[in-house]
Amino acid sequence: MKPWANSGLGRDLHLDLTASGSLSRGLRARLVSALRESIRSGRLGADTTLPASRTLAVDLGIARNTVAEAYAELVAEGWLTARQGSGTRVADRTGEPPHRPRPHITSSLPSSSPTPALSLVPGSPDVGEFPRTAWLASARRALTAAPNEAFGHGDPRGRIELRRALAEYLSRARGVRADPEQIVVSASSGHGLWLLARSLEGTFAVEGYGLHLHRELLHDADVVTTPMELDTLGAQPPDISGRHLSAALLTPAHQFPMGGPLHPSRRTAFVEWARTTGGIVIEDDYDGEFRYDRQPVGALQGLAPDQVVYLGTATKTLSPAIRVGWMVMPEHLIDGILAVKGIYERWVSATDQLTLADFIESGAFDRHIRRMRTSYRRRRDALVATLAERAPHVKVTGIAAGLHAVLELPAGTESATVDRATALGVEVMGLSTFRHPDAVENQVDGLVVGYSTPSSARFEATINALCQALPAP
Amino acid sequence: MKPWANSGLGRDLHLDLTASGSLSRGLRARLVSALRESIRSGRLGADTTLPASRTLAVDLGIARNTVAEAYAELVAEGWLTARQGSGTRVADRTGEPPHRPRPHITSSLPSSSPTPALSLVPGSPDVGEFPRTAWLASARRALTAAPNEAFGHGDPRGRIELRRALAEYLSRARGVRADPEQIVVSASSGHGLWLLARSLEGTFAVEGYGLHLHRELLHDADVVTTPMELDTLGAQPPDISGRHLSAALLTPAHQFPMGGPLHPSRRTAFVEWARTTGGIVIEDDYDGEFRYDRQPVGALQGLAPDQVVYLGTATKTLSPAIRVGWMVMPEHLIDGILAVKGIYERWVSATDQLTLADFIESGAFDRHIRRMRTSYRRRRDALVATLAERAPHVKVTGIAAGLHAVLELPAGTESATVDRATALGVEVMGLSTFRHPDAVENQVDGLVVGYSTPSSARFEATINALCQALPAP
Repeated sequence: MKPWANSGLGRDLHLDLTASGSLSRGLRARLVSALRESIRSGRLGADTTLPASRTLAVDLGIARNTVAEAYAELVAEGWLTARQGSGTRVADRTGEPPHRPRPHITSSLPSSSPTPALSLVPGSPDVGEFPRTAWLASARRALTAAPNEAFGHGDPRGRIELRRALAEYLSRARGVRADPEQIVVSASSGHGLWLLARSLEGTFAVEGYGLHLHRELLHDADVVTTPMELDTLGAQPPDISGRHLSAALLTPAHQFPMGGPLHPSRRTAFVEWARTTGGIVIEDDYDGEFRYDRQPVGALQGLAPDQVVYLGTATKTLSPAIRVGWMVMPEHLIDGILAVKGIYERWVSATDQLTLADFIESGAFDRHIRRMRTSYRRRRDALVATLAERAPHVKVTGIAAGLHAVLELPAGTESATVDRATALGVEVMGLSTFRHPDAVENQVDGLVVGYSTPSSARFEATINALCQALPAP
Repeated sequence: MKPWANSGLGRDLHLDLTASGSLSRGLRARLVSALRESIRSGRLGADTTLPASRTLAVDLGIARNTVAEAYAELVAEGWLTARQGSGTRVADRTGEPPHRPRPHITSSLPSSSPTPALSLVPGSPDVGEFPRTAWLASARRALTAAPNEAFGHGDPRGRIELRRALAEYLSRARGVRADPEQIVVSASSGHGLWLLARSLEGTFAVEGYGLHLHRELLHDADVVTTPMELDTLGAQPPDISGRHLSAALLTPAHQFPMGGPLHPSRRTAFVEWARTTGGIVIEDDYDGEFRYDRQPVGALQGLAPDQVVYLGTATKTLSPAIRVGWMVMPEHLIDGILAVKGIYERWVSATDQLTLADFIESGAFDRHIRRMRTSYRRRRDALVATLAERAPHVKVTGIAAGLHAVLELPAGTESATVDRATALGVEVMGLSTFRHPDAVENQVDGLVVGYSTPSSARFEATINALCQALPAP
C-alpha cells in the first residue's frame, strides 16, 4: 500500500469507496454513490463544504477529473451546489423527507442558555465586564513567549509561571504564606475540594449553612459531611475529644451564605482543633478579594500554613468560563493530592494558565479587581438603598464583603417569596437551599441575593422585581 | 464603618494594622511594623512591588504622607528599595538569615520538566509545531464575537459553538453520525471515560493490551476491567451469553498500542454484542486523524450510533495543553452523563472551547492536521528506513496510521532494552506496560515507539540512540 501522498492543504473528507458497491463498478460511480449516501443519511449536513476536487483526488489516489465529474453529477442531481469562490457544498434540501431523520434532543435537558431573563443566583460575577481586550493581550504575550514544552503534557502541579504569579499575588493581597512549590493548580475550587476528598477520605465537618454544590460533590466522592453550628462569631469548631474528622471546610473571610467573617477567636480555635486532632482546615476563599470596608480579613492560612489548605478561584474575580483554581497546600499533603490528580495535568487548560500568569504579573488582575470592587460596591449600595425605601421591614445582612446579601424574611414566608419572584421572572435562591440536612441551629427564612449576577442594563429592573416579590410588612 | 473608597487603580496589599501592636501607637509606627513583619516572615518576597503610597493610603483610610513616611523609613532600614519609574519594591536581602525559612519541596515530586532529554514515549504530538499564531487569531475572533453569557456558568454539554463545529467536522472527516445535541464536551478522552465509568458503573471489557492510564482511571472510578484477547483481526468481542458487561472499550481505527485497525467482521460483531446484551461500545478515536495510506478507517460509531459512544480529543491533533475532548453520545445515555458532570460546566475552559470552535470552522484545524500528517509520515518513513539499515532483524508493525510504531523484540529482551535506552538518555516504553494484568494472550516483547514526541531538531539523535539500545541480532 502506497503512503498517502496528501497535500498540506485542503479539508479532510471520510469516504469508503470499497463499501459503495462492487469493486467492478467504475471509480466515478462508486464515488458518486458514496457521496450521495453520505448526504442522504444526514452525515454530511446542508452547507458542509467539500474538499476541492484536486485535494480529494490526491487523498483518494484517483484522477482529479474523476472527482470533478462526480461533483458535477451530484450538482446536477441537486445534492451539491457549486459557486465560484465558495467551493462545492452540500445543498440545503430542507422540506424533503430525509432518509433517516437526525435525532433532536430537547425534552429533559437544560436549555443552552441556563440563565433566565433575570437572575440573582449567587456565584457569578458580572459577565458583561469580562476584560476581553486585556485577557487577549495577555494570551498573545503568554503564548508567544511560552517554551515549546508548555504545549506538551504538563507538571501535575500546574504551570510554574502561574504558580509563581499566584505565590506573589496571594502573599501580597490575601496574606497567604505561599511558595510556588506549595501551590497546586486545579480547574476550580470544586475540583480542588474533590481532589482533597479523594485524598483525605473520611468525614468532613462543613458549615451548617454552606454551598449545596460542595456537599453534593463531597457525597459523590464518598465523603460524609457533618454540620458545624453557626452563631454570631461564625462556625463552631468540632469537639476536640469527639470522633475523628479528616477536615473542616470553612469560608473564613465571608461566610457563605450568611456573609460574616469568622471571629478571630474562632480562627484561633480552628487552628487549635487542627493542631490537636491532626485534622485539616480547608479555607474556601471564594470571594475574599471583594471587601468594601477597611477591616482587612486576610487568609486564615497565614496563621497556620501547615494545618490549612487554601482554595482560591478565578470564578468570581474573572469568570466561571476560566476554569482555573488554586490550592496552597501544607507540604505533607501534596504527594497525596498529586497521586489523585494523576501523572498527567488533568483537566486544566495550559493556555488559560499561561494567560492568567501574565494577566496577574502585568498588573491587569489587580486593576480588574479594583475596578470591579468599585462597581459591586455601587450595586450593593443601590440594593440597600432600594430595600430601605421599598421594604424597610426586611433586614439586609452580610454586606460588608462579597457579591451577595442575605435578606431576612418573616418565618414561614421564604418558599412563597421565591415562588413569587419566579413568577415575576427573577430567579433567586432561598436560604433553605444552603442548609445542611442535619443542621442543628434554628432554620432562618431568607433570600440569598447575588447582586453581581445581573447585567448592568438589567440590574435596576431585577432589584425592582425582587422588591415586588417580597412579603408585605 | 465607612465603605472602602478605593480607587480603580493600583495594586492590593493585605495589611492588618490592628494586629501590629497597641492601637495607641501612632499609625505610622503600626504601618512600619506591619510592613516589616510581612517582609521578615517571607510573606512579601524580594522584588514584590508595593502599591503606590496614594493607593495604599486610600485603601487604609489614612493620610498619604503617613504611607510615604513609612515607606521612606523602611527604605532607610534596607527592607524596601525605591527607584524612579519602578515604584517601591521589597529589597532582595539574599544572604541574610531569614526569620522563618520558606519550605522548598523538591524531594519526592516530579520535576517541573517531566520530559527527559530524549523521549519516545507515545501520546504527544510534536509540541514545537503547535500553531500559536493561528490559535491566537482564532482566540481573538472567538472572544471578541462571543456573547456575554459565554463568560458565565455554562451549559454542562459544552459551548454550542464548539458542538456545532465538531458535529460538522466529525461527520465529514471521521464518518461519525453527530448532531450538536448529542455531543458532550469533556476536558479530555480520560475525562470522558471517567464520566462514563461513574455513569455506567459495573464491569468494562478492555483490550488485552491498552492504555494503562485508562485502566488506572477506571479503577479509580470503581470500575472493574476484564481483558479481551487480541488477535490478527483485533479485539475479540465478549461472549454474548457470558456475564453482563456495561461496556467494551475499543480503539477501532488504530489499536493502542499494537497499531492495527479492527477488522470489519469484528466491527459488526461488536455492534451485534452491544445490540444483544445492551452493553455500550466506547470508541476511543485517539489518533484517527493520522492515517498514511488510502485505506479509510472511519468511526465505528457511524455503523451503530445508538450503541456506540465516540471519544475524541485535541491532544494528538493540537496539544495536550488544550484540555478539550468530546463525546458523541447515544441519546439515552446523555442525561446520566450530565448528572455526573454536574450542573455547572465542570472543568472545561470556555475560552479554549470558543477558540477551538473558530479554529475548526475557519479551516485552520484541517490545515494543521494535513500539514502534521505529512510531517509525521516523513518521520515514520525515516524511522522505518533507519531501522531497516541498522537493525534489520527488528520487525516494525502498526505503522499504517497513528503516531507510534511497535518494534518486536526477541523473547526476554524487552526489559534490558528499555534499560539500555534509559542509560543512553532515551525514555521509551516496553509493550509490557500496556498489558492488562489478566490478559490471556502470549506476552510479546517489544517497544512502543512514539515517533511524534521528539522535537524535529532531536528526532535523528533520538532514533540513533534507540538503534544503539536495540538487542543484537
